[in-house]
Amino acid sequence: MLISMSYHGSCVMIKGTLYLIPSILAEGVIENVIPAGTLEIIRGLQYFIVEEIRTARRFLIKAGISSPINDLTFFIFNEHSVETGLEHFFSPAFEGHSIGVLSEAGVPCVADPGALIVRKAHDLEIRVVPLTGPSSILLSLMASGFNGQNFAFIGYLPSEKNDRNKRIREVEQKMIIQDQTQIFIETPYRNLQLFDAIVSVCNPETMLCLATNITGDEENIVSKPIRVWKTRKPDIHKKNTIFLLYHG
Amino acid sequence: MLISMSYHGSCVMIKGTLYLIPSILAEGVIENVIPAGTLEIIRGLQYFIVEEIRTARRFLIKAGISSPINDLTFFIFNEHSVETGLEHFFSPAFEGHSIGVLSEAGVPCVADPGALIVRKAHDLEIRVVPLTGPSSILLSLMASGFNGQNFAFIGYLPSEKNDRNKRIREVEQKMIIQDQTQIFIETPYRNLQLFDAIVSVCNPETMLCLATNITGDEENIVSKPIRVWKTRKPDIHKKNTIFLLYHG
Repeated sequence: MLISMSYHGSCVMIKGTLYLIPSILAEGVIENVIPAGTLEIIRGLQYFIVEEIRTARRFLIKAGISSPINDLTFFIFNEHSVETGLEHFFSPAFEGHSIGVLSEAGVPCVADPGALIVRKAHDLEIRVVPLTGPSSILLSLMASGFNGQNFAFIGYLPSEKNDRNKRIREVEQKMIIQDQTQIFIETPYRNLQLFDAIVSVCNPETMLCLATNITGDEENIVSKPIRVWKTRKPDIHKKNTIFLLYHG
Repeated sequence: MLISMSYHGSCVMIKGTLYLIPSILAEGVIENVIPAGTLEIIRGLQYFIVEEIRTARRFLIKAGISSPINDLTFFIFNEHSVETGLEHFFSPAFEGHSIGVLSEAGVPCVADPGALIVRKAHDLEIRVVPLTGPSSILLSLMASGFNGQNFAFIGYLPSEKNDRNKRIREVEQKMIIQDQTQIFIETPYRNLQLFDAIVSVCNPETMLCLATNITGDEENIVSKPIRVWKTRKPDIHKKNTIFLLYHG
Protein backbone atom coordinates (compact mmCIF):
# COMPACT_ATOMS: atom_id res chain seq x y z
CA MET A 1 0.00 0.00 0.00
CA LEU A 2 1.28 3.47 -0.86
CA ILE A 3 1.84 5.94 1.95
CA SER A 4 1.41 9.68 1.48
CA MET A 5 3.50 11.80 3.77
CA SER A 6 3.57 15.49 4.61
CA TYR A 7 6.37 17.27 6.42
CA HIS A 8 5.55 19.51 9.40
CA GLY A 9 8.92 20.87 10.45
CA SER A 10 11.02 17.89 11.50
CA CYS A 11 8.05 15.57 12.10
CA VAL A 12 6.83 13.23 9.36
CA MET A 13 3.05 12.82 9.39
CA ILE A 14 1.39 10.04 7.39
CA LYS A 15 -1.59 11.61 5.57
CA GLY A 16 -4.99 9.94 5.63
CA THR A 17 -6.57 8.51 2.49
CA LEU A 18 -9.74 9.67 0.74
CA TYR A 19 -11.95 6.59 0.30
CA LEU A 20 -14.79 6.75 -2.24
CA ILE A 21 -17.56 4.67 -0.70
CA PRO A 22 -20.41 3.12 -2.68
CA SER A 23 -23.83 3.07 -1.07
CA ILE A 24 -26.79 0.76 -1.70
CA LEU A 25 -29.23 1.42 -4.55
CA ALA A 26 -32.28 -0.29 -3.02
CA GLU A 27 -33.39 -1.75 0.31
CA GLY A 28 -32.11 -5.26 1.02
CA VAL A 29 -29.17 -7.14 2.48
CA ILE A 30 -26.13 -4.86 2.29
CA GLU A 31 -23.71 -7.82 1.87
CA ASN A 32 -25.43 -8.66 -1.43
CA VAL A 33 -24.00 -5.58 -3.11
CA ILE A 34 -21.16 -4.22 -0.97
CA PRO A 35 -17.99 -6.40 -0.75
CA ALA A 36 -16.72 -7.42 2.70
CA GLY A 37 -13.48 -5.53 2.00
CA THR A 38 -15.40 -2.30 1.36
CA LEU A 39 -17.49 -2.81 4.53
CA GLU A 40 -14.32 -3.34 6.60
CA ILE A 41 -12.86 -0.03 5.44
CA ILE A 42 -16.16 1.84 6.03
CA ARG A 43 -16.42 0.47 9.59
CA GLY A 44 -13.02 1.88 10.58
CA LEU A 45 -13.67 5.47 9.43
CA GLN A 46 -14.67 8.44 11.59
CA TYR A 47 -14.73 11.33 9.08
CA PHE A 48 -17.15 11.55 6.18
CA ILE A 49 -18.00 13.95 3.36
CA VAL A 50 -21.68 13.34 2.56
CA GLU A 51 -24.56 14.76 0.53
CA GLU A 52 -27.09 14.49 3.38
CA ILE A 53 -26.34 13.50 6.98
CA ARG A 54 -29.58 11.60 7.65
CA THR A 55 -29.14 9.18 4.71
CA ALA A 56 -25.44 8.83 5.49
CA ARG A 57 -26.07 7.87 9.16
CA ARG A 58 -28.69 5.30 8.12
CA PHE A 59 -26.28 3.73 5.64
CA LEU A 60 -23.35 3.69 8.09
CA ILE A 61 -25.44 1.97 10.78
CA LYS A 62 -26.51 -0.62 8.19
CA ALA A 63 -22.83 -1.08 7.25
CA GLY A 64 -21.96 -1.77 10.91
CA ILE A 65 -19.85 1.32 11.63
CA SER A 66 -17.54 0.70 14.64
CA SER A 67 -17.60 4.12 16.33
CA PRO A 68 -20.73 5.40 18.12
CA ILE A 69 -22.71 7.34 15.48
CA ASN A 70 -22.52 10.56 17.54
CA ASP A 71 -18.71 10.44 17.52
CA LEU A 72 -18.54 10.65 13.72
CA THR A 73 -17.73 13.92 11.93
CA PHE A 74 -19.73 14.81 8.83
CA PHE A 75 -18.91 17.48 6.27
CA ILE A 76 -21.74 18.30 3.86
CA PHE A 77 -21.08 18.64 0.14
CA ASN A 78 -23.89 18.60 -2.41
CA GLU A 79 -25.15 20.47 -5.48
CA HIS A 80 -25.71 23.60 -3.33
CA SER A 81 -22.08 23.69 -2.18
CA VAL A 82 -19.53 26.00 -3.71
CA GLU A 83 -16.25 24.90 -5.20
CA THR A 84 -14.16 27.28 -3.10
CA GLY A 85 -13.17 26.58 0.47
CA LEU A 86 -13.07 22.79 0.22
CA GLU A 87 -9.69 22.68 1.98
CA HIS A 88 -11.18 22.42 5.48
CA PHE A 89 -12.79 19.07 4.57
CA PHE A 90 -9.27 17.70 4.39
CA SER A 91 -7.86 18.85 7.73
CA PRO A 92 -8.46 15.35 9.27
CA ALA A 93 -6.32 13.86 6.46
CA PHE A 94 -3.41 16.13 7.41
CA GLU A 95 -3.77 14.87 10.99
CA GLY A 96 -3.46 11.28 9.74
CA HIS A 97 -7.17 10.35 9.60
CA SER A 98 -8.75 8.82 6.52
CA ILE A 99 -11.97 10.29 5.14
CA GLY A 100 -14.88 8.63 3.35
CA VAL A 101 -16.92 10.23 0.57
CA LEU A 102 -20.50 8.94 0.47
CA SER A 103 -23.12 9.44 -2.23
CA GLU A 104 -26.89 9.35 -1.66
CA ALA A 105 -27.08 6.13 -3.70
CA GLY A 106 -24.59 4.13 -5.73
CA VAL A 107 -20.97 5.14 -6.25
CA PRO A 108 -19.79 8.66 -5.42
CA CYS A 109 -18.48 11.01 -8.12
CA VAL A 110 -20.61 9.42 -10.85
CA ALA A 111 -23.86 11.31 -11.59
CA ASP A 112 -23.19 13.54 -8.56
CA PRO A 113 -20.97 16.58 -7.86
CA GLY A 114 -18.39 14.63 -5.77
CA ALA A 115 -15.67 14.91 -8.43
CA LEU A 116 -14.77 18.39 -7.13
CA ILE A 117 -13.83 16.82 -3.78
CA VAL A 118 -11.58 14.29 -5.49
CA ARG A 119 -9.99 16.96 -7.66
CA LYS A 120 -9.10 18.92 -4.53
CA ALA A 121 -7.63 15.76 -2.95
CA HIS A 122 -5.36 15.28 -6.00
CA ASP A 123 -4.27 18.95 -5.71
CA LEU A 124 -3.39 18.35 -2.04
CA GLU A 125 -1.53 15.11 -2.91
CA ILE A 126 -3.92 13.05 -0.78
CA ARG A 127 -4.25 9.45 -1.94
CA VAL A 128 -7.66 8.62 -3.45
CA VAL A 129 -8.94 5.02 -3.25
CA PRO A 130 -12.20 4.07 -5.04
CA LEU A 131 -14.08 1.19 -3.42
CA THR A 132 -16.19 -1.37 -5.28
CA GLY A 133 -19.97 -1.29 -5.04
CA PRO A 134 -23.16 -1.04 -7.11
CA SER A 135 -23.59 1.54 -9.88
CA SER A 136 -27.00 1.61 -11.54
CA ILE A 137 -25.43 3.10 -14.68
CA LEU A 138 -22.85 0.33 -15.07
CA LEU A 139 -25.22 -2.50 -14.07
CA SER A 140 -27.89 -1.33 -16.51
CA LEU A 141 -25.32 -1.01 -19.31
CA MET A 142 -24.14 -4.60 -18.64
CA ALA A 143 -27.71 -5.91 -18.70
CA SER A 144 -28.95 -3.86 -21.67
CA GLY A 145 -27.25 -5.96 -24.34
CA PHE A 146 -26.10 -2.67 -25.92
CA ASN A 147 -22.56 -1.69 -26.98
CA GLY A 148 -20.32 -1.84 -23.90
CA GLN A 149 -17.17 -1.13 -25.91
CA ASN A 150 -18.29 2.43 -26.63
CA PHE A 151 -20.83 4.20 -24.40
CA ALA A 152 -21.64 7.62 -22.94
CA PHE A 153 -23.50 8.70 -19.83
CA ILE A 154 -24.94 12.16 -20.47
CA GLY A 155 -26.89 12.87 -17.26
CA TYR A 156 -30.27 14.61 -17.60
CA LEU A 157 -31.96 15.79 -20.80
CA PRO A 158 -33.72 19.21 -20.84
CA SER A 159 -37.18 19.17 -19.21
CA GLU A 160 -38.80 21.68 -21.61
CA LYS A 161 -40.63 19.78 -24.37
CA ASN A 162 -39.10 21.29 -27.53
CA ASP A 163 -35.58 21.35 -26.10
CA ARG A 164 -35.98 17.77 -24.93
CA ASN A 165 -37.21 16.52 -28.31
CA LYS A 166 -34.33 18.31 -30.04
CA ARG A 167 -31.85 16.75 -27.60
CA ILE A 168 -33.30 13.25 -28.07
CA ARG A 169 -32.79 13.62 -31.84
CA GLU A 170 -29.17 14.73 -31.29
CA VAL A 171 -28.56 11.81 -28.93
CA GLU A 172 -30.02 9.33 -31.42
CA GLN A 173 -27.79 10.78 -34.17
CA LYS A 174 -24.70 10.49 -31.97
CA MET A 175 -25.64 6.90 -31.16
CA ILE A 176 -25.70 6.08 -34.89
CA ILE A 177 -22.68 8.10 -36.07
CA GLN A 178 -20.39 7.10 -33.18
CA ASP A 179 -21.85 3.57 -32.72
CA GLN A 180 -22.15 4.55 -29.06
CA THR A 181 -24.69 3.48 -26.42
CA GLN A 182 -26.33 6.59 -24.94
CA ILE A 183 -27.26 6.46 -21.25
CA PHE A 184 -29.32 9.09 -19.40
CA ILE A 185 -31.58 9.61 -16.40
CA GLU A 186 -34.62 11.62 -15.34
CA THR A 187 -36.20 12.70 -12.06
CA PRO A 188 -38.42 9.64 -11.33
CA TYR A 189 -41.77 11.51 -11.41
CA ARG A 190 -40.96 12.67 -14.97
CA ASN A 191 -39.93 9.22 -16.26
CA LEU A 192 -43.12 8.62 -18.24
CA GLN A 193 -42.92 12.04 -19.93
CA LEU A 194 -39.39 11.23 -21.06
CA PHE A 195 -40.49 7.77 -22.21
CA ASP A 196 -43.35 9.28 -24.28
CA ALA A 197 -40.96 11.78 -25.85
CA ILE A 198 -38.44 9.08 -26.81
CA VAL A 199 -41.13 6.86 -28.31
CA SER A 200 -42.57 9.74 -30.36
CA VAL A 201 -39.20 11.07 -31.60
CA CYS A 202 -36.95 8.04 -32.21
CA ASN A 203 -36.76 5.70 -35.18
CA PRO A 204 -39.04 2.63 -34.70
CA GLU A 205 -36.01 0.32 -35.03
CA THR A 206 -33.89 2.13 -32.40
CA MET A 207 -33.52 0.01 -29.27
CA LEU A 208 -34.55 1.41 -25.86
CA CYS A 209 -33.58 -0.30 -22.60
CA LEU A 210 -35.38 0.65 -19.39
CA ALA A 211 -33.59 -0.56 -16.25
CA THR A 212 -35.75 -0.02 -13.15
CA ASN A 213 -35.04 -0.62 -9.43
CA ILE A 214 -31.57 -2.04 -10.14
CA THR A 215 -30.45 -4.51 -7.39
CA GLY A 216 -33.87 -4.19 -5.72
CA ASP A 217 -36.53 -6.88 -5.27
CA GLU A 218 -38.47 -5.46 -8.20
CA GLU A 219 -35.48 -5.09 -10.54
CA ASN A 220 -36.71 -5.00 -14.11
CA ILE A 221 -34.52 -4.62 -17.20
CA VAL A 222 -36.16 -4.68 -20.62
CA SER A 223 -34.58 -3.95 -24.02
CA LYS A 224 -36.99 -3.56 -26.93
CA PRO A 225 -37.21 -1.67 -30.24
CA ILE A 226 -39.22 1.59 -30.10
CA ARG A 227 -41.91 0.01 -32.32
CA VAL A 228 -42.58 -2.55 -29.55
CA TRP A 229 -42.50 0.10 -26.78
CA LYS A 230 -45.19 1.99 -28.74
CA THR A 231 -47.62 -0.80 -27.83
CA ARG A 232 -46.82 -1.05 -24.11
CA LYS A 233 -46.56 1.44 -21.23
CA PRO A 234 -43.66 0.56 -18.89
CA ASP A 235 -44.09 0.53 -15.11
CA ILE A 236 -41.50 3.24 -14.40
CA HIS A 237 -43.55 6.06 -12.82
CA LYS A 238 -41.68 7.40 -9.74
CA LYS A 239 -39.27 4.45 -9.94
CA ASN A 240 -35.50 4.85 -10.28
CA THR A 241 -34.86 4.14 -13.94
CA ILE A 242 -31.89 4.28 -16.28
CA PHE A 243 -32.65 4.98 -19.97
CA LEU A 244 -30.35 3.50 -22.63
CA LEU A 245 -30.52 3.93 -26.42
CA TYR A 246 -28.70 1.94 -29.09
CA HIS A 247 -29.32 1.11 -32.72
CA GLY A 248 -31.05 -2.12 -33.73
CA MET B 1 -38.26 -11.95 -7.73
CA LEU B 2 -39.63 -12.26 -11.27
CA ILE B 3 -40.06 -15.70 -12.75
CA SER B 4 -39.73 -16.35 -16.48
CA MET B 5 -41.75 -19.26 -17.76
CA SER B 6 -41.89 -21.16 -21.03
CA TYR B 7 -44.63 -23.52 -22.09
CA HIS B 8 -43.75 -26.98 -23.40
CA GLY B 9 -47.11 -28.49 -24.22
CA SER B 10 -49.05 -28.72 -20.96
CA CYS B 11 -45.97 -28.50 -18.72
CA VAL B 12 -44.81 -25.15 -17.34
CA MET B 13 -41.02 -24.88 -17.14
CA ILE B 14 -39.38 -22.08 -15.14
CA LYS B 15 -36.58 -20.67 -17.29
CA GLY B 16 -33.12 -20.14 -15.84
CA THR B 17 -31.64 -16.66 -15.43
CA LEU B 18 -28.60 -15.20 -17.18
CA TYR B 19 -26.30 -13.82 -14.46
CA LEU B 20 -23.59 -11.35 -15.47
CA ILE B 21 -20.68 -12.15 -13.17
CA PRO B 22 -17.88 -9.71 -12.37
CA SER B 23 -14.39 -11.13 -12.03
CA ILE B 24 -11.37 -9.76 -10.13
CA LEU B 25 -9.09 -7.12 -11.67
CA ALA B 26 -5.92 -8.00 -9.75
CA GLU B 27 -4.60 -10.74 -7.47
CA GLY B 28 -5.72 -10.49 -3.85
CA VAL B 29 -8.53 -11.44 -1.50
CA ILE B 30 -11.66 -12.01 -3.60
CA GLU B 31 -13.98 -10.86 -0.77
CA ASN B 32 -12.39 -7.40 -0.97
CA VAL B 33 -14.01 -6.70 -4.32
CA ILE B 34 -16.79 -9.24 -4.89
CA PRO B 35 -19.87 -8.95 -2.59
CA ALA B 36 -20.92 -12.01 -0.58
CA GLY B 37 -24.26 -11.99 -2.44
CA THR B 38 -22.49 -12.21 -5.80
CA LEU B 39 -20.24 -15.04 -4.52
CA GLU B 40 -23.28 -16.98 -3.27
CA ILE B 41 -24.92 -16.85 -6.70
CA ILE B 42 -21.67 -17.83 -8.49
CA ARG B 43 -21.19 -20.86 -6.19
CA GLY B 44 -24.58 -22.32 -7.11
CA LEU B 45 -24.12 -22.21 -10.89
CA GLN B 46 -23.14 -25.08 -13.18
CA TYR B 47 -23.30 -23.49 -16.65
CA PHE B 48 -21.02 -20.69 -17.80
CA ILE B 49 -20.38 -18.64 -20.93
CA VAL B 50 -16.72 -17.58 -20.75
CA GLU B 51 -13.98 -15.94 -22.83
CA GLU B 52 -11.33 -18.51 -21.88
CA ILE B 53 -11.87 -21.73 -19.87
CA ARG B 54 -8.54 -21.72 -18.01
CA THR B 55 -9.03 -18.23 -16.50
CA ALA B 56 -12.68 -18.99 -15.76
CA ARG B 57 -11.84 -22.22 -13.85
CA ARG B 58 -9.19 -20.42 -11.80
CA PHE B 59 -11.64 -17.66 -10.88
CA LEU B 60 -14.46 -20.10 -10.02
CA ILE B 61 -12.19 -22.12 -7.72
CA LYS B 62 -11.15 -18.87 -6.01
CA ALA B 63 -14.84 -17.95 -5.67
CA GLY B 64 -15.52 -21.28 -3.92
CA ILE B 65 -17.72 -22.93 -6.58
CA SER B 66 -19.86 -25.72 -5.03
CA SER B 67 -19.84 -28.30 -7.84
CA PRO B 68 -16.69 -30.27 -8.71
CA ILE B 69 -14.90 -28.23 -11.39
CA ASN B 70 -15.10 -31.12 -13.90
CA ASP B 71 -18.89 -31.20 -13.62
CA LEU B 72 -19.24 -27.63 -14.89
CA THR B 73 -20.24 -26.87 -18.47
CA PHE B 74 -18.43 -24.06 -20.30
CA PHE B 75 -19.47 -22.38 -23.53
CA ILE B 76 -16.78 -20.23 -25.14
CA PHE B 77 -17.61 -16.79 -26.46
CA ASN B 78 -14.92 -14.23 -27.28
CA GLU B 79 -13.86 -11.78 -30.01
CA HIS B 80 -13.33 -14.71 -32.42
CA SER B 81 -16.89 -15.96 -32.01
CA VAL B 82 -19.60 -15.25 -34.54
CA GLU B 83 -22.91 -13.62 -33.75
CA THR B 84 -24.97 -16.39 -35.33
CA GLY B 85 -25.73 -19.66 -33.61
CA LEU B 86 -25.73 -18.34 -30.05
CA GLU B 87 -29.03 -20.10 -29.30
CA HIS B 88 -27.37 -23.33 -28.13
CA PHE B 89 -25.70 -21.45 -25.25
CA PHE B 90 -29.18 -20.99 -23.83
CA SER B 91 -30.45 -24.57 -23.93
CA PRO B 92 -29.68 -25.04 -20.17
CA ALA B 93 -31.89 -22.01 -19.44
CA PHE B 94 -34.83 -23.66 -21.20
CA GLU B 95 -34.24 -26.72 -19.00
CA GLY B 96 -34.51 -24.52 -15.90
CA HIS B 97 -30.77 -23.98 -15.22
CA SER B 98 -29.29 -20.55 -14.69
CA ILE B 99 -26.19 -19.52 -16.65
CA GLY B 100 -23.30 -17.23 -15.69
CA VAL B 101 -21.45 -14.94 -18.11
CA LEU B 102 -17.83 -14.38 -17.07
CA SER B 103 -15.37 -11.83 -18.42
CA GLU B 104 -11.57 -12.23 -18.35
CA ALA B 105 -11.37 -9.36 -15.85
CA GLY B 106 -13.88 -6.94 -14.38
CA VAL B 107 -17.55 -6.83 -15.33
CA PRO B 108 -18.82 -8.67 -18.42
CA CYS B 109 -20.34 -6.78 -21.37
CA VAL B 110 -18.27 -3.64 -20.71
CA ALA B 111 -15.12 -3.37 -22.88
CA ASP B 112 -15.73 -6.92 -24.13
CA PRO B 113 -18.02 -8.54 -26.74
CA GLY B 114 -20.43 -10.06 -24.16
CA ALA B 115 -23.27 -7.69 -25.06
CA LEU B 116 -24.23 -9.96 -27.98
CA ILE B 117 -24.98 -12.75 -25.48
CA VAL B 118 -27.20 -10.46 -23.46
CA ARG B 119 -28.99 -9.21 -26.55
CA LYS B 120 -29.80 -12.79 -27.50
CA ALA B 121 -31.08 -13.45 -23.96
CA HIS B 122 -33.47 -10.48 -24.26
CA ASP B 123 -34.67 -11.85 -27.65
CA LEU B 124 -35.35 -15.22 -25.99
CA GLU B 125 -37.14 -13.53 -23.05
CA ILE B 126 -34.59 -14.90 -20.58
CA ARG B 127 -34.19 -12.77 -17.45
CA VAL B 128 -30.83 -10.95 -17.26
CA VAL B 129 -29.41 -10.08 -13.81
CA PRO B 130 -26.22 -7.98 -13.57
CA LEU B 131 -24.16 -8.66 -10.42
CA THR B 132 -22.05 -6.09 -8.59
CA GLY B 133 -18.26 -6.20 -8.79
CA PRO B 134 -15.19 -4.18 -9.75
CA SER B 135 -14.99 -2.24 -13.02
CA SER B 136 -11.65 -0.55 -13.71
CA ILE B 137 -13.42 1.98 -15.95
CA LEU B 138 -15.91 3.05 -13.29
CA LEU B 139 -13.40 2.98 -10.41
CA SER B 140 -10.90 5.07 -12.33
CA LEU B 141 -13.60 7.58 -13.30
CA MET B 142 -14.62 7.92 -9.62
CA ALA B 143 -11.02 8.46 -8.54
CA SER B 144 -9.98 10.77 -11.40
CA GLY B 145 -11.73 13.85 -10.06
CA PHE B 146 -13.07 14.41 -13.60
CA ASN B 147 -16.68 15.03 -14.67
CA GLY B 148 -18.77 12.02 -13.56
CA GLN B 149 -22.02 13.66 -14.68
CA ASN B 150 -21.07 13.37 -18.34
CA PHE B 151 -18.50 10.83 -19.54
CA ALA B 152 -17.75 8.48 -22.43
CA PHE B 153 -15.77 5.28 -22.68
CA ILE B 154 -14.49 4.97 -26.25
CA GLY B 155 -12.41 1.76 -26.12
CA TYR B 156 -9.11 1.70 -28.03
CA LEU B 157 -7.62 4.49 -30.15
CA PRO B 158 -5.99 3.62 -33.51
CA SER B 159 -2.46 2.20 -33.17
CA GLU B 160 -1.03 3.84 -36.33
CA LYS B 161 0.73 7.08 -35.36
CA ASN B 162 -0.99 9.63 -37.61
CA ASP B 163 -4.44 8.12 -37.12
CA ARG B 164 -3.86 8.02 -33.38
CA ASN B 165 -2.76 11.67 -33.18
CA LYS B 166 -5.77 12.72 -35.26
CA ARG B 167 -8.08 10.74 -32.98
CA ILE B 168 -6.53 12.23 -29.82
CA ARG B 169 -7.23 15.71 -31.20
CA GLU B 170 -10.85 14.75 -31.93
CA VAL B 171 -11.25 13.28 -28.45
CA GLU B 172 -9.82 16.43 -26.84
CA GLN B 173 -12.23 18.57 -28.90
CA LYS B 174 -15.20 16.44 -27.85
CA MET B 175 -14.09 16.71 -24.23
CA ILE B 176 -14.18 20.53 -24.50
CA ILE B 177 -17.33 20.98 -26.61
CA GLN B 178 -19.43 18.41 -24.74
CA ASP B 179 -17.83 19.02 -21.30
CA GLN B 180 -17.41 15.24 -21.23
CA THR B 181 -14.71 13.11 -19.58
CA GLN B 182 -13.13 10.86 -22.23
CA ILE B 183 -12.01 7.39 -21.12
CA PHE B 184 -9.96 4.95 -23.21
CA ILE B 185 -7.58 2.00 -22.97
CA GLU B 186 -4.56 0.53 -24.74
CA THR B 187 -2.86 -2.87 -24.92
CA PRO B 188 -0.50 -2.61 -21.88
CA TYR B 189 2.76 -2.96 -23.86
CA ARG B 190 1.76 0.10 -25.95
CA ASN B 191 0.78 2.27 -22.94
CA LEU B 192 3.90 4.46 -23.07
CA GLN B 193 3.50 5.09 -26.81
CA LEU B 194 -0.05 6.27 -26.20
CA PHE B 195 1.11 8.41 -23.26
CA ASP B 196 3.81 10.07 -25.41
CA ALA B 197 1.26 10.78 -28.14
CA ILE B 198 -1.21 12.37 -25.70
CA VAL B 199 1.48 14.54 -24.12
CA SER B 200 2.72 15.74 -27.52
CA VAL B 201 -0.73 16.42 -28.98
CA CYS B 202 -2.91 17.79 -26.15
CA ASN B 203 -3.15 21.29 -24.73
CA PRO B 204 -0.75 21.76 -21.77
CA GLU B 205 -3.71 22.63 -19.50
CA THR B 206 -5.76 19.52 -20.40
CA MET B 207 -5.91 17.11 -17.46
CA LEU B 208 -4.77 13.49 -17.90
CA CYS B 209 -5.53 10.82 -15.30
CA LEU B 210 -3.61 7.54 -15.40
CA ALA B 211 -5.20 4.81 -13.28
CA THR B 212 -2.94 1.75 -13.02
CA ASN B 213 -3.44 -1.66 -11.37
CA ILE B 214 -6.90 -0.69 -10.03
CA THR B 215 -7.80 -2.68 -6.85
CA GLY B 216 -4.31 -4.25 -6.84
CA ASP B 217 -1.54 -3.83 -4.27
CA GLU B 218 0.22 -1.35 -6.54
CA GLU B 219 -2.89 0.67 -7.41
CA ASN B 220 -1.83 4.12 -8.55
CA ILE B 221 -4.19 6.89 -9.69
CA VAL B 222 -2.70 10.24 -10.66
CA SER B 223 -4.46 13.26 -12.25
CA LYS B 224 -2.19 16.03 -13.54
CA PRO B 225 -2.21 18.64 -16.31
CA ILE B 226 -0.32 17.67 -19.49
CA ARG B 227 2.32 20.34 -18.73
CA VAL B 228 3.22 18.42 -15.52
CA TRP B 229 3.17 15.03 -17.28
CA LYS B 230 5.69 16.44 -19.79
CA THR B 231 8.26 16.43 -16.97
CA ARG B 232 7.66 12.93 -15.65
CA LYS B 233 7.44 9.46 -17.21
CA PRO B 234 4.68 7.37 -15.57
CA ASP B 235 5.30 3.77 -14.49
CA ILE B 236 2.64 2.22 -16.77
CA HIS B 237 4.66 -0.01 -19.12
CA LYS B 238 2.90 -3.40 -19.46
CA LYS B 239 0.58 -2.46 -16.56
CA ASN B 240 -3.20 -2.38 -16.87
CA THR B 241 -4.00 1.31 -17.18
CA ILE B 242 -7.08 3.41 -17.83
CA PHE B 243 -6.52 6.77 -19.59
CA LEU B 244 -8.90 9.66 -18.80
CA LEU B 245 -8.91 13.18 -20.28
CA TYR B 246 -10.77 16.24 -19.04
CA HIS B 247 -10.29 19.97 -19.28
CA GLY B 248 -8.45 21.94 -16.59
